Amino acid sequence: MSHIRFQCVNCNAHTVAEVVRLHCAECASPLDVAYTSDTGASQAPEMPSPLHLPGDAIRLGEGNTPSVLMSAACRILGIPALYAKLEMMNPTGSFKDRGTAVMMSVMREAGVSEVVEDSSGNAGASVAAYAARAGIKAHIFAPANAPAAKLGQIKVYGATTHFIKGSRQDTANAAADFAERNGFVYASHNLSPFFTEGTKTFAYETIEQFGNELPAHIVIPVGNGSLLIGAFKGFSELLQNGIIHAIPKLHAIQARAVMPIAAAFSGEPQTQSNAASTTIAGGISVSNPPRLHQAVQTLRATGGSAAAVAEMDIRRWHSLLAHKEGIFVEPTSAAAFAGLEVLTASGIISPTESVLVAATGSGLKDAFPA
Amino acid sequence: MSHIRFQCVNCNAHTVAEVVRLHCAECASPLDVAYTSDTGASQAPEMPSPLHLPGDAIRLGEGNTPSVLMSAACRILGIPALYAKLEMMNPTGSFKDRGTAVMMSVMREAGVSEVVEDSSGNAGASVAAYAARAGIKAHIFAPANAPAAKLGQIKVYGATTHFIKGSRQDTANAAADFAERNGFVYASHNLSPFFTEGTKTFAYETIEQFGNELPAHIVIPVGNGSLLIGAFKGFSELLQNGIIHAIPKLHAIQARAVMPIAAAFSGEPQTQSNAASTTIAGGISVSNPPRLHQAVQTLRATGGSAAAVAEMDIRRWHSLLAHKEGIFVEPTSAAAFAGLEVLTASGIISPTESVLVAATGSGLKDAFPA
Repeated sequence: MSHIRFQCVNCNAHTVAEVVRLHCAECASPLDVAYTSDTGASQAPEMPSPLHLPGDAIRLGEGNTPSVLMSAACRILGIPALYAKLEMMNPTGSFKDRGTAVMMSVMREAGVSEVVEDSSGNAGASVAAYAARAGIKAHIFAPANAPAAKLGQIKVYGATTHFIKGSRQDTANAAADFAERNGFVYASHNLSPFFTEGTKTFAYETIEQFGNELPAHIVIPVGNGSLLIGAFKGFSELLQNGIIHAIPKLHAIQARAVMPIAAAFSGEPQTQSNAASTTIAGGISVSNPPRLHQAVQTLRATGGSAAAVAEMDIRRWHSLLAHKEGIFVEPTSAAAFAGLEVLTASGIISPTESVLVAATGSGLKDAFPA
Repeated sequence: MSHIRFQCVNCNAHTVAEVVRLHCAECASPLDVAYTSDTGASQAPEMPSPLHLPGDAIRLGEGNTPSVLMSAACRILGIPALYAKLEMMNPTGSFKDRGTAVMMSVMREAGVSEVVEDSSGNAGASVAAYAARAGIKAHIFAPANAPAAKLGQIKVYGATTHFIKGSRQDTANAAADFAERNGFVYASHNLSPFFTEGTKTFAYETIEQFGNELPAHIVIPVGNGSLLIGAFKGFSELLQNGIIHAIPKLHAIQARAVMPIAAAFSGEPQTQSNAASTTIAGGISVSNPPRLHQAVQTLRATGGSAAAVAEMDIRRWHSLLAHKEGIFVEPTSAAAFAGLEVLTASGIISPTESVLVAATGSGLKDAFPA
């Protein structure tokens, strides 16, 4: 991987890019992919890729998701142009496929034969699918109480499943331990620099779809923040290459029950009762995201914000999107629209500005009693 | 609808195109959309549309599904180039969205406010979604034993559901009766000429994706035949307009348990025991398809064929596609690959020819015990 290196998101220290490295050797913070200047220059304005042979990537048709106008939601919110980018139409039903495609392609290039991943469901299914396609054996750790459809999907692809009782953090710890004990690569979508690198296609496609009329705001449901961080990286590359002149304001939406990023953004400590509560938005139910500071910095860098939403509003938007727009999302994606409502009500998004919301995952994977 | 009329698929009689008309007034056969020559000429080489304002169509981002190389299946079957067109990545998880988008857009243009549809699941979910988006009330009739995920999806969109005990035909009869009794439009995806008209985008996209290297064969799982018939219509238009010089051979795959089209193609009557049996491939479990003769004629017109497959082979390919290709289809789509195996083994498809298989529906909607 001579054309890339890792760069610490905290202390900026550089290190060799290796598939087994997930933390900065200096300060233990997460890492990002950085391109050596030679390669960056020669590849511009094409999207830089960490792969030696991008044409040989493992592809399942991920990306190129449609952005559709949300007329009913526009009327309800009183804004002129609201689009949803239907990330749920990725091959395994969530945006995770963008990151997984790059992460698993890098793994295959590096000759990895067995990986470990932990996930509340979507990333586990995604890694299981791409690992199957790559001929890599996958061990997927998931909370035992994750939605049945997500757990079933992980099994379908032939991955070895490890369902862990306890918190989401217990699942992550079990996966990391298992990888270390067995000498397998820990392909953590939360930590792998290659995963966030993969999600930056979201930004490139937004430019393709909207051209000079980029949405002023992009609203993203955020758990670990990989889509937020990847989108920002993509927009930053496009800005550097002169393709765009400004980055849309990126906003992070969380559930009030689990809102570490929204709390950190506003400077308010999360209350004890919140930390112990749960949300139907399982995809963003992450109480201890490793890239928290990077996510908050990203919001600030774009002039965006964070908002946290109530369970009843997630349910209301879930129903509204299905009944009025014909779009069946998972609760996590409904939370983003509930968050948009908060941002318009508070004036953070003005009634004249255009908005794009990431509809991150399919309702087929995470139905819940109405 | 002055630029179109209906044409009988049997006696070729013409009639006025009306959303309530589903059968030829002369011979009671199904109808197709036909374009008046003036409009056809002015629109060529663009795809003719039955809509007055195609730009105002109800869209959910349907179509433009990826065609991905199936390396593992190529090795197993000993063919050089096998692609799957991932129709499962349509907005509601099946190819039906292509037909529904056009059918429901026509309904809205015609001022229809309430429709009735019957479906084993996929089309019902699709009509429910597009009706919600169009602001049209939908009554969906489905067999009470259809997969829970499909029935749940229909309900999510706010459609009024009518679950009917008995055969698939009982469901269709109940829907037609209900529509007639209440004066609602029967938006039957099996019969509506607008539905098959919508599926022809499959052919136009195939040209875009493969250019001059069109696959020699296209293999489609067939129940009512709307994708087969629509694809043929699209290819025929492209041939007429000189965009292509030959139509790929279209092949229909059915389950041995329910194989009226395969039986009619081979001239063998379906045995009594077959007619009474069932298949896990619910999407093609149609014992009495209204467009049977049209489907058989379509196969013959392209030099294609029909094959019927065993349940154990559907299961084997379902597992193989997930484990080796990372693609989780519904059993109906797995049947198409099992059918391709029959066609290659019998020499109908030679080991030097390229093949495209329609992966029609998502496994998330129709999981079954392994």
